Amino acid sequence: MEFVAIVTVLALLQYIYFAVLVGQARGKYGVNGPAVTGHPVFERYFRVQMNTLELLVVLVPGLWLFARYVSPLWSAVLGAVYLVGRFIYLRAYVADPAQRGLGFGLSMLPTLALLLGALVGALLQVF
Amino acid sequence: MEFVAIVTVLALLQYIYFAVLVGQARGKYGVNGPAVTGHPVFERYFRVQMNTLELLVVLVPGLWLFARYVSPLWSAVLGAVYLVGRFIYLRAYVADPAQRGLGFGLSMLPTLALLLGALVGALLQVF
Amino acid sequence: MEFVAIVTVLALLQYIYFAVLVGQARGKYGVNGPAVTGHPVFERYFRVQMNTLELLVVLVPGLWLFARYVSPLWSAVLGAVYLVGRFIYLRAYVADPAQRGLGFGLSMLPTLALLLGALVGALLQVF
Repeated sequence: MEFVAIVTVLALLQYIYFAVLVGQARGKYGVNGPAVTGHPVFERYFRVQMNTLELLVVLVPGLWLFARYVSPLWSAVLGAVYLVGRFIYLRAYVADPAQRGLGFGLSMLPTLALLLGALVGALLQVF
Repeated sequence: MEFVAIVTVLALLQYIYFAVLVGQARGKYGVNGPAVTGHPVFERYFRVQMNTLELLVVLVPGLWLFARYVSPLWSAVLGAVYLVGRFIYLRAYVADPAQRGLGFGLSMLPTLALLLGALVGALLQVF
Repeated sequence: MEFVAIVTVLALLQYIYFAVLVGQARGKYGVNGPAVTGHPVFERYFRVQMNTLELLVVLVPGLWLFARYVSPLWSAVLGAVYLVGRFIYLRAYVADPAQRGLGFGLSMLPTLALLLGALVGALLQVF
């Protein structure tokens, strides 16, 4: 389970890094809290952070349930794909929100695979 | 614990479904990312997703702590009530935000019951 | 692990309390859902809730991974510092967003310590 723990912490640290980027964008583009709008580039950083938050809430239970009912190793591998996908998503979204598809897919698909794998694994244990 | 795992995954899949509805509402009502305002019906779908995210962050630890310190079976039952309550909430909020009370209660109350039950169960183990 | 469970539940109940304050601020300052802007004081309560949500997503896995790989007791202690820090953050942010630094630090630093400690602990088990 250690690799699952390491991937979990890295995903959470990546998210904190995205939040730090939002804080820097506040200063750079002059958007003071509590406002979350006011400059289009700031809003991109903010949406990346929020979208990552939305995905993390699903990813973390997915990693642990998949590890428990399917495979800890494959859980960590799918989590590593998510990590790379989120960095691609960040770069693409900030450059041009219309180009966010690849990074979104590379972080959403492993998350869905974790969830569905965990569901099947848990159902197989019941029946 | 398998039933708790299944309910957890279903709650996360329900949330992803709500996020897909937000994406569809973006297209239907012409609200392009990163904007999250611009059409009242889009904003209702978006608030449903955000409100569900807010509740999930509490629900998932609640399900597992209640299962650990009180009862896995009742944890899954309360989680099932939450699932139904969230679907009622979605339908009501999109139709008319003022009618969201029942669905809100049916998803908030089981979440609170999980938390308070887990707290009492853990305190009883300590003292 | 009971103390970690108790701190986890208290952090989730604190967050629900912050959400209740947002609901009260909706009434007091006349900001009806789904709107999340419209009055500066309402927006402060809303940002406190959202910022706490963002931190909780990191805190809860951090508490449990730190407890697992480092120390349950110190996990609970760091979680207790977080709880106090969040109450200071609430009071300061609502009074004056520019004064939020102390409460932010007292809730962010223990969260980071939990994450980094868990990462080191898990890495030490692998190597």
